[in-house]
Parts: sequence; C-alpha cells; structure tokens
Amino acid sequence: MEKTMEKIVALAKARGFVYPGSEIYGGLANTWDYGNLGVELKNNVKKAWWQKFIQESPYNVGVDCAILMNPQTWVASGHLGGFSDPLMDCKECHERFRADKLIEDFCEENGIAIEGSVDGWSQEEMKNFIEEHNVPCPTCGKHNFTDIRQFNLMFKTFQGVTEDAKNTVYLRPETAQGIFVNFKNVQRTSRKKIPFGIGQIGKSFRNEITPGNFTFRTREFEQMELEFFCEPGTDMEWFQYWRGFCRDWLLSLGIKEDEMRLRDHSPEELCFYSKGTTDIEFLFPFGWGELWGIADRTDYDLTQHANTSGEDMTYFDDEKKEKYIPYVIEPSLGADRVVLAFLCAAYDEEELEGGDVRTVLHFHPALAPVKIGVLPLSKKLNEGAEKIYAELSKKYNCEFDDRGNIGKRYRRQDEIGTPFCVTYDFDSETDGCVTVRFRDSMEQERVAIKDLDAYFADKFTF
Amino acid sequence: MEKTMEKIVALAKARGFVYPGSEIYGGLANTWDYGNLGVELKNNVKKAWWQKFIQESPYNVGVDCAILMNPQTWVASGHLGGFSDPLMDCKECHERFRADKLIEDFCEENGIAIEGSVDGWSQEEMKNFIEEHNVPCPTCGKHNFTDIRQFNLMFKTFQGVTEDAKNTVYLRPETAQGIFVNFKNVQRTSRKKIPFGIGQIGKSFRNEITPGNFTFRTREFEQMELEFFCEPGTDMEWFQYWRGFCRDWLLSLGIKEDEMRLRDHSPEELCFYSKGTTDIEFLFPFGWGELWGIADRTDYDLTQHANTSGEDMTYFDDEKKEKYIPYVIEPSLGADRVVLAFLCAAYDEEELEGGDVRTVLHFHPALAPVKIGVLPLSKKLNEGAEKIYAELSKKYNCEFDDRGNIGKRYRRQDEIGTPFCVTYDFDSETDGCVTVRFRDSMEQERVAIKDLDAYFADKFTF
Repeated sequence: MEKTMEKIVALAKARGFVYPGSEIYGGLANTWDYGNLGVELKNNVKKAWWQKFIQESPYNVGVDCAILMNPQTWVASGHLGGFSDPLMDCKECHERFRADKLIEDFCEENGIAIEGSVDGWSQEEMKNFIEEHNVPCPTCGKHNFTDIRQFNLMFKTFQGVTEDAKNTVYLRPETAQGIFVNFKNVQRTSRKKIPFGIGQIGKSFRNEITPGNFTFRTREFEQMELEFFCEPGTDMEWFQYWRGFCRDWLLSLGIKEDEMRLRDHSPEELCFYSKGTTDIEFLFPFGWGELWGIADRTDYDLTQHANTSGEDMTYFDDEKKEKYIPYVIEPSLGADRVVLAFLCAAYDEEELEGGDVRTVLHFHPALAPVKIGVLPLSKKLNEGAEKIYAELSKKYNCEFDDRGNIGKRYRRQDEIGTPFCVTYDFDSETDGCVTVRFRDSMEQERVAIKDLDAYFADKFTF
Repeated sequence: MEKTMEKIVALAKARGFVYPGSEIYGGLANTWDYGNLGVELKNNVKKAWWQKFIQESPYNVGVDCAILMNPQTWVASGHLGGFSDPLMDCKECHERFRADKLIEDFCEENGIAIEGSVDGWSQEEMKNFIEEHNVPCPTCGKHNFTDIRQFNLMFKTFQGVTEDAKNTVYLRPETAQGIFVNFKNVQRTSRKKIPFGIGQIGKSFRNEITPGNFTFRTREFEQMELEFFCEPGTDMEWFQYWRGFCRDWLLSLGIKEDEMRLRDHSPEELCFYSKGTTDIEFLFPFGWGELWGIADRTDYDLTQHANTSGEDMTYFDDEKKEKYIPYVIEPSLGADRVVLAFLCAAYDEEELEGGDVRTVLHFHPALAPVKIGVLPLSKKLNEGAEKIYAELSKKYNCEFDDRGNIGKRYRRQDEIGTPFCVTYDFDSETDGCVTVRFRDSMEQERVAIKDLDAYFADKFTF
C-alpha cells in the first residue's frame, strides 16, 4: 500500500504525534506542536543522538548556549551580511517569489538544463536570465517584476526598552556559533586535547519564505550539531570518520540502505571555505530531503571569530609544541527532520491473513514513544496490572489501557509503535506470569512477572 | 566557610558549568551558556522532572509546543494587554526605572510601611505616591521624572517579509499557553479522563528591565510547567496534592528543609482569578528567591481561550454525564533557577583532618553531571581502565582522567560533584578488582570489575 504524506500527517494528528501549532486560532504559518506521543519520540531521538555523539564518545562533550547572542557573532559568521534570499514581487498580481526558485521551476518545466544550483548565482545573473528567457509570473502569467532584493533570513527582535538598532538582537539561525564562541572556554574546562568535539541540541530560527512539507521545513526548528576540532591535515580523515559515523547511527536506528543516500557536493556547489561536504538524504514520500549536512569547514569559523573579536582562537599542541587554529568537521542534523524520517520509515500498512489491514509503526524500540503497553485482560484484573505498570514505569514510558477488547488494544498499540505489550490475564492471578506480545511478529510469549525487569533490561538499547 | 555567589559563579566558570554568554564579544546583557558540565546537570534536572511528573505519573502526559504562537493566544491569555512593567525616565540624568521598584526601594530606605506589593497599584497611584513623598532619582537625586508608561515584556519579532503589524509575532513569555490551546487535542489523542495533566519543558522569553543574580533572572529562560485539569470543587484538594508533590521532589533530590520555604500568597497578592497560590522559595546566597509557583487558576485560562477562539473548551464527564470547563492547578518551575538552587545547595568547602580544605559539590547522584570518574593509577594501566570506561559509558556519563596524582584527581572529581570514582591499579591486572571511592565520605571499597554493572545499577535512582 502506498505510503503518503496525507496518511502520515493524519495519523500524526489522530494519535498525538504532531498537531498544527495554535490550531484553535487557525494556526500560525507552518508551525507544529508535538503531542503526547510526539514529544516522547522526539526526546528519544535527541537522547539517542546525545548517547552516541556525546555520552559514549571518548572525544566529545556537550554545551547548551543561549538563543540570543551578541550580534557581533553574526557579523563574524557572515549571517548578517550574507544569509539572505533573493526576493522579487510581481507588480501585476503582487505575489512574492524567490528569484532562484522561480528560475529553477521555469527550467524544469521547460526542459532547460542549467549547471549547478541557481543558489550560487549573483543577483544580476538571475535578473538577466529572467529577462532573456522572458520568465513569466507563475501566478498571473505577466512579465512585470520588481528588482531583486536580498531578504535576511534571521528573525530580529529588540532587547531592552527601545526598538532601535542599538537594541536589535537576532534569534540564532544555527546552534553552531554558540559552540565556536565558546571553543576556548570548553577546551579549558573540559581539558580536552585535540582532536575533540563539542555538541549541542537546541532551537534555531530562520525566516523562510516558503516553509512546508509538514515538519520538514519550518521557521522554528531544532538542531543537533557537532563541531569537531582537529589538526589541519588530519581533517579529511575525520571528515570520512564522521560521515560514516552518522550513516551508521541512522542504520542502527532502523533507517534502511535504500531509503538513504549520501550526496557529495560537487566543487561548484561547495562553500568557498569548505574542503568537502556530504548531505545525508532520506527518501520522504515527497522525495529526497536533506537530514544531515557533514562539512569540512577548515579553520574558517574560528578564524572569523578571532578576527572579529580580537581573541586568540589558537590551540597549543603540547606534544608537538605547535600552535594552530584547528580545522572543523561539522555534522549538522535537523532534529525535526530526522524525527519525521523515523516516522515515515516506521509507517506501514500490513495486510494480514484473512484480509484485515493493520497500521503499524515499526519504530526501533529505543525510539518508540511508548515502550510497553500494560493491558489487563478484564477490568477485574486492573489491580494486578496496575502494580506491573507502576513498576515498569520507573524505567520506561509505559501506557496502561483497559478499554475495549484485547485485539483492538493490540492494534492501537501497533498504530503508535509500542514494541511490547504485557497482558495480565486470569491465569496471571495464580501462575504469576503474563503474556508478552511482540508488535512486529505479533507472536506471544509467557513470562514470569518477577522476571520482567531482567526480561526487558536489554530490549531498548541500540 | 561562607557560601557566596562570587565563589559559586567562579567555580561554575572554571569548571564548565556556566560561562557568560557571547563572552568573546563582551557578553550580551545577562545571558549565560551552559558548559560541558552545566549541560549535563541541567539535562539531569529536566530528566528528573520528566520522570516524576510525566513518566511515572499515572495522570500526566507531555507535549512540546512551538515558541512562536498565533498572536491571538496572547490576546486570550492577557499578555498583550497586561503583561507589562511601569517605566519612567529621569529627565535630568536619563536613567530609566521601574516605578514600582523605585517606590519599594524608597520605602525600605526610609522605613515607610506599605501594605501588600506595589506591583498591584495603578499607574496613577504610583505617580501620586512619588509626588506626595517627593521621591528623588536614585542616580542624580533630582525630582524631574517623565510620566509612567507601560512597557510590554514580550519580545516581538516579524515573520514573513515585511515588518508590519500584520506580521508581528511574539516569543512566548511562558510555556503554559501552548498547553491550554492544545487541551482538546491532547485529551482526544491521549484518551485521558479528568483528572489529568499536561506537562512541558521549554524556553520562554521575557524582556526584563533588570535581569540579574547570575542565572536566577534572565531574559531567556527555561520552564518546566504542568497544567493539571480537574473537576471544579476538587481543585483545592489537587492544589494541596501538587503543592506537596513539588516539595517532595525537591527534598528527594537533596534540597534541605531549612533551605526551602512555602510562601502562601495573601488574599491581596493573589491574581483575581486564582483561588490559591504558593511559592516554593529557596534560600540563595543572595536571599530567598522563588523557584516554583503553584497556583489554582480555576477555569480562567480555558474560558479565556474559549471566548477568544470561539472553540469549545468543555470536557464531558462520561460517568456523571456532565459538561464543564475544568479547573487548572499549575505548578510552574524555572529550570535555570532550580539548577542554580541545586548548585548552591551542593556547594561546600570542607576542612579536612590536617587542615586542608576541599571544595565539593554534594549533588544527588541522579543530578551529578559526571556519574563515575574512571582513573588509572598510572598511565601504564590505561588499557584496562579504558575498557571499564567504555563499558560504563554505555549507561552513564563518565569521565576518564589519567593526569596528575590520584589525590589531586579525587579532589578534582569532588569539585565537579562526581559521586563515585573507580580506580584501576596494578593489583587490578591480577585480581580483577578496582577501588570504588565515595565523594561524600571519601571512603573506599574494593569491587570486582565483573560486578560493576550490578554494583552501580541502583546508585543513581531517586
């Protein structure tokens, strides 16, 4: 059966993964709220990232920096000067467009081959192309555009009492810069030697002109970024290391080889300071979309901050008695995007023997929002089942469900991706055992209540 | 020895708990970044809240809502109309003041008794008081103030291309409203029956005129809020329940009775819609400060949203066949504040036998940023110790330290609050045992390496 975004969005809303933001007020552009299951799924994804990239890594430590930063940060990073989209309006129908997207769509429709991405063209090149090819307004068909102007994608706000330039601050467009400005602080307090990395999970904001595709492109989003600092010359090795590490992380959590591709940027597509960039893309129902950007950023960021702040950003290598500005490998992952990827990958409609169809989310147990459903076969058995629920809840997010027949309850747990159900029946009262039922195989097994703790101990690791 | 903020701020910076935000650019007002240990401490605090308030609670579920909400939300909540400070400028020296604080400070200095909080006065009452008492400018001593004007504390930004009223949105000043607008969504998808609660952890923003006291009052801050919905008439019972639950949570994580007080709001201090409010305060080195506000908010919030949105916010009670708007009990906790409280409570300088002083953070093991320090007695023993580190890191945040003499390494772990150190020595190579050393008692115990997993299994629960 076809896996469509419509089905996934509908399930997400019906079962409490994702609701439209501010829904009772008609929403707010493309904002979304994670519901009672969505918050657990997202927290599990963040936990899985932190576990492998920070906790278990002998190289890396974490930080959690403020969203509001001194605006000089964005001078140094280039976001104040260059982080913008080329916009133009149709003077006839007043619709607004991104000039680069307008050209790309026009070329695709008319079979015109262009080299590389229009993203990299100058404003003049875009303007010339539109005039030469007589590109029409996609809405009204006329040819009367304004000039192209650059629109900065950072959200601006004012701190303090007056709304003037002096008080203008920005919502960070990426978490990375909080790491760069703290490079020396973290190196000092963690006493790490190069190579080492600093990771961060947190919200970022970009005033996108065309957010869309559910939670794939939103103006407010969460990132999981690692900045890995290494000696110049060793950077391409580490680039390969993290490229593989990220890929393996996705595979170990259930993303399949054929749903994922690693796309290396061509020399034309590369940022001027990058020696290599790979995007890890996932095959969403709407097409391939970027999850992870892994880039060798050389010493660009630290050098920019050293120049702008006047602070020393060099590292002194004790053994080699050498001073240098480290190179940086940056694996940058969109938390909302990878949550959506896990949701899409997990979604399945299975035809069962007898013709019934069950909807099931095949989440990796480490990611499943509810780990164990605890189901008394009858309400008369609630007391015994509640004891098991209370015990298991200390370690796992569990759900207690005593409503409806047991078959329907299993289907409901399948639909929210619960890997295990524990059913407490009339025999349990005397034999001290429960039935454990598996989501994927639908098989069942009898387990002693006193052994449940040990039974589940290794079921949710990855 | 005296516990001062100076000492705690210095330790926080030196050891990687908290750095000044954007430090290389001279900071940004009162923003702070959590460093390599601070992020672990804060994550542990959030995890401990989630565990007791959501995961183990048979009543509550979580959500994670967007920071940017439809502005009608703030019309309904009253934040657009009423969430403001009364400001006035001195026309002589151009200093700016909060009129209420100006009056409070003046009264304190001059021994004038006032009833209740100036917070609740009207603009005119404040103006009259200043004129009648001839209150001078605290900076220049003159008497030439502007009129008082209301300054809204919400951060304002613009989404989309133009910076006009139509595109104005606000950074949420509290997480609670994301819960209220989703009340029906969560009730439907979680299938919870009243009484039940919805909890959320997330960033909020308030454009405070006078942030300060380290991370106690910042413009960007994180909240852990629960909105608990119950039947009208049962609300005072539930108010008492959550009041006790919150208190117990703090006690169970090591806050002592004499560092904490529950302050019930007097009838004059209560919001007009609240039937009862209690602040849980902690004794910081700078004085008593509010951590937790626990309030019976009646049906105020849901009624406001029902009226503003036109949506039905009633709950239908299946058993009683009754429809009503639930009452709300709100325990609202500042994440940064309670992290600071745990840090202050943990801080200690102990005089040891022989006159030495050790600085130690007596964190509850569940909150300690590093759970176990793994220390090879000599660098020659790194291989065996690294194996232990790799194994324990799968479950706990550990630190490997092979630098300096073992006594100094223990002191360093004491200073960051690590409850256990595992020392691998020359005997370990042959007897398969390590020494486990305790932070608080400084006692030591010999444990077999193969038993470490079981040994630590129950050491970090609460």
